[in-house]
Amino acid sequence: MLDMKWSPAEKKIARAAYDRAYQRECDAILLEVKSMLASAADNQIIWRLEEYLRDRRREIDRKYDFRYSVLMLVFISLYAEGWLKEEDLAGLSPEKIYKITHPLA
Amino acid sequence: MLDMKWSPAEKKIARAAYDRAYQRECDAILLEVKSMLASAADNQIIWRLEEYLRDRRREIDRKYDFRYSVLMLVFISLYAEGWLKEEDLAGLSPEKIYKITHPLA
Repeated sequence: MLDMKWSPAEKKIARAAYDRAYQRECDAILLEVKSMLASAADNQIIWRLEEYLRDRRREIDRKYDFRYSVLMLVFISLYAEGWLKEEDLAGLSPEKIYKITHPLA
Repeated sequence: MLDMKWSPAEKKIARAAYDRAYQRECDAILLEVKSMLASAADNQIIWRLEEYLRDRRREIDRKYDFRYSVLMLVFISLYAEGWLKEEDLAGLSPEKIYKITHPLA
């Protein structure tokens, strides 16, 4: 799985898909921040926010890695978590799409 | 300055003043968080928020210390930064109030 070749066209599609997943995840974090603030009972929400954002930053730093040598694994994670959608993958080889969407097959 | 004695009544006043300063500072942080969010152009505000809150947490962890051996220095800082007001100090000995409000005298 890690020695897959990426054509120039696939690299472009992969980059756009990756960026879209990242934007969706950042949107979701921003929405959660706003929701935490809206339902906060007092000013101590700032420390829960700080912890939440720190955890998200660590998770995102760990998860997002565009090296082609690990990109299939990254896409499998992002797809499983819902940040990457099947339509984002259109244009990748059928084999890649199948492996990303059926990692356990 | 560090070997000052605190009477039971002064300890109670000092604790309330300290808590009030902390609450004021947390209120100001919450206000800044809301202002950053309100003026954010895009979802990348989450990482600027994360950095801002991390810096504030470190600063507050470093600054707030209720041990009587350092409390005068803590109060000097909090007063100089505006988190502690002169009225919060009412009931402390005149010597303490003067040292807190005129640390360089």
